[in-house]
Amino acid sequence: MRHLLSTKALSRDEAISLLDIAEDMADVANREVKKLPTLRGKTVVNLFFEDSTRTRISFEAAAKRLSADVINFSAKGSSVSKGESLKDTAQTLAAMGADGVVIRHPASGAPQVLAGSGWIDAGIINAGDGTHEHPTQALLDAFTIRRRLHDGASRGRGLDGVTVTIVGDILHSRVARSNLWLLNTLGAHVTFIAPPTLVPADTSAWPAGIGYDLDAAIDAGPDVVMMLRIQAERMNAAFFPNSREYSRRWGLDDERFARLSSHSIVMHPGPMNRGLEISSAAADSDRSTVREQVANGVSVRMAALYLLLSGDREDH
Amino acid sequence: MRHLLSTKALSRDEAISLLDIAEDMADVANREVKKLPTLRGKTVVNLFFEDSTRTRISFEAAAKRLSADVINFSAKGSSVSKGESLKDTAQTLAAMGADGVVIRHPASGAPQVLAGSGWIDAGIINAGDGTHEHPTQALLDAFTIRRRLHDGASRGRGLDGVTVTIVGDILHSRVARSNLWLLNTLGAHVTFIAPPTLVPADTSAWPAGIGYDLDAAIDAGPDVVMMLRIQAERMNAAFFPNSREYSRRWGLDDERFARLSSHSIVMHPGPMNRGLEISSAAADSDRSTVREQVANGVSVRMAALYLLLSGDREDH
Amino acid sequence: MRHLLSTKALSRDEAISLLDIAEDMADVANREVKKLPTLRGKTVVNLFFEDSTRTRISFEAAAKRLSADVINFSAKGSSVSKGESLKDTAQTLAAMGADGVVIRHPASGAPQVLAGSGWIDAGIINAGDGTHEHPTQALLDAFTIRRRLHDGASRGRGLDGVTVTIVGDILHSRVARSNLWLLNTLGAHVTFIAPPTLVPADTSAWPAGIGYDLDAAIDAGPDVVMMLRIQAERMNAAFFPNSREYSRRWGLDDERFARLSSHSIVMHPGPMNRGLEISSAAADSDRSTVREQVANGVSVRMAALYLLLSGDREDH
Repeated sequence: MRHLLSTKALSRDEAISLLDIAEDMADVANREVKKLPTLRGKTVVNLFFEDSTRTRISFEAAAKRLSADVINFSAKGSSVSKGESLKDTAQTLAAMGADGVVIRHPASGAPQVLAGSGWIDAGIINAGDGTHEHPTQALLDAFTIRRRLHDGASRGRGLDGVTVTIVGDILHSRVARSNLWLLNTLGAHVTFIAPPTLVPADTSAWPAGIGYDLDAAIDAGPDVVMMLRIQAERMNAAFFPNSREYSRRWGLDDERFARLSSHSIVMHPGPMNRGLEISSAAADSDRSTVREQVANGVSVRMAALYLLLSGDREDH
Repeated sequence: MRHLLSTKALSRDEAISLLDIAEDMADVANREVKKLPTLRGKTVVNLFFEDSTRTRISFEAAAKRLSADVINFSAKGSSVSKGESLKDTAQTLAAMGADGVVIRHPASGAPQVLAGSGWIDAGIINAGDGTHEHPTQALLDAFTIRRRLHDGASRGRGLDGVTVTIVGDILHSRVARSNLWLLNTLGAHVTFIAPPTLVPADTSAWPAGIGYDLDAAIDAGPDVVMMLRIQAERMNAAFFPNSREYSRRWGLDDERFARLSSHSIVMHPGPMNRGLEISSAAADSDRSTVREQVANGVSVRMAALYLLLSGDREDH
Repeated sequence: MRHLLSTKALSRDEAISLLDIAEDMADVANREVKKLPTLRGKTVVNLFFEDSTRTRISFEAAAKRLSADVINFSAKGSSVSKGESLKDTAQTLAAMGADGVVIRHPASGAPQVLAGSGWIDAGIINAGDGTHEHPTQALLDAFTIRRRLHDGASRGRGLDGVTVTIVGDILHSRVARSNLWLLNTLGAHVTFIAPPTLVPADTSAWPAGIGYDLDAAIDAGPDVVMMLRIQAERMNAAFFPNSREYSRRWGLDDERFARLSSHSIVMHPGPMNRGLEISSAAADSDRSTVREQVANGVSVRMAALYLLLSGDREDH
């Protein structure tokens, strides 16, 4: 694998292979010394044009566990904020010897531009670009679902026939998009539930069902209910009246949580707005995978860094 | 030792044991390669909800000298500042595999909440919480006093009979509180000298003398005079007329420094306001331990990290 | 070498020796594992009183490639910004065991003060001080010129007879000053071209020609044309009418670039204002060394850190 830019471009075999390597990486966390020498002498740059402490430290932990050197490059206060082009930033990082660049950018497509430009030979990982994609989030979600369903016998398997309901602001969510493509590739069936104002205008090409009624969706008994984080700034944007109304209609509150099918699991990419899109009872129950998702995030990012930066990298 | 949250909870044996390990750690600084492999593969997160570059880099240097990986997590600009709960932050760090969390927080008691919550299994070190405690500061102060008094023969000893006068804003000082408990546990006698408005309302349970007259305190010939940093923001808070008045009555100026007993040592936790609570002559004299305190801070923090994170950790 | 504070103080032998070591360091970048154990156990502090992400990460990459531990100390939000003196900051870093301090400071001369003070025993590298010097920038520039002229046979050589034209805001540029002294020491001939308002009042002691006409300078066929970055804030300072006028008279636009002598190389310290002081065609051509300069920056900084921090350090 050369870059990890989107889940839409991943084949089923590539995705399953990455998840299988992440299984091996998860085992490292149980070792006496939680560290592999695999990427010693490699340099990973966290190039963040938006703040995201959680994502940044997950990649940082993953890279350090593989013995890579990590350099954090926040665009704030840098020459980038003074108008330096992405091209010049990329060429600078290339010249400094970056082997991998983890990029978070407010513009959809920025990681693709970086990877396709020829400006830099490093492996590029998209850590979230605008409303486009956040592939490692989808991979850790798929990894988490696979482990819950096939614990101890996950390797080599997809998610065939698994039903996943994703609830919230689909319009602006890169997490929703990355999950859509990956889950579909792995054989799962995705349904989106959202306020009508938070669904894209044209979803005809999406391999997913679209609905507006969370209660009906819950009564359908999906294997997975994934609640998305609602951004406070959307609240002021007249997409819906207010947060109480949002919570009442599209929140996983205690009553809806109680009605969930007994085998359903509850997911959330974090950070959660407790009491808004998810109740504390739902978030903290045994059926919630919130903490597993975070832990699996490190394993999946280790796998991605390994695939992109180790000697076996393709097309290099 | 499971956590290091306060000095109030430390037994004399625990405190002396930590100081003795810090003596070993201080020797590492004199080696050709100033590094121990002790915590290789362990991850220490510096979780700072308040800026404190000095404390952060002291812990960072200590952790790196023990070969741990260090991840800096400043709450500013993170999801924490967007309202994420301490619980969710803690569970995130736990899931990412943090072995130790060094927490600085404006709320008194936050580290205790973290340690007692079950949210995270990592060793927690309080790096300053509100006006409550700052235990590693007190431990480095005790270490510094012990070395000055018993140089080369410190190991195993307390501070029995040592007289310590602590001067400044006792009301708001976590350094004063942590020193109070630890020095008392180690057998020292503590006297606080402060403006009447900067003494807590009820100090009846404190094993310390309280006074308002620095000149009388100096004439009593204490073994140690510890000047606290005065926060500029208190100046505007009507606690006393102005900084000149503060300096005149409670500052260690050249005249008072000259009157100090010949064996007295002068301490300050830094950063100093030269000319306000301490004169440059006092700060830079041979009797000042300011620089030793900083150096000893690294050793004491190495000892604390070692006790909490190495294989010998209790109750794990 | 004890410190690296300015190029003015460097002898020809010292400069050539550092460039030769940088040649060895450049070879490390081509290794399978791009890392030397040379500075294991050493601590390098990046003490930045001004933001400069590019310079900071170049030093960080250099130090990590030599296996040093790196601690980033941004003065923003630290006690330094609350009025702590440079003396106290220096003594703090010394006490924490810093072996090297890379300092960027808005005040000309701050690194010299640090190095000459006795406050700290660490090796000090000036990473830019006010309008004074930026020695590693000049060294990487000289390294880049030497490699272009004598590729594969650079070692031991200076830049005798090489003609270098430096164009832009000479008045405020520490890069211009550091290049002036170093290039002259190495035997090159320097000419400055600048708007009259951006030339220092008295340059009589400078071993350089001064001119105002970029077209005439280009027609003279220099071996090297180095374009300096123009700071947007100067534009508002009435030094010249506006950026269009600046570009028209002192920018390396496509027309001037086409007229350059066929053997001339084009340099820029970055970050570039494309379309202002340099056109994209000039910046991206084969004759541009912009990317080599960045790569060579890591090698030169590795050499400087090696000379200051390894066991062979003089006068220690």
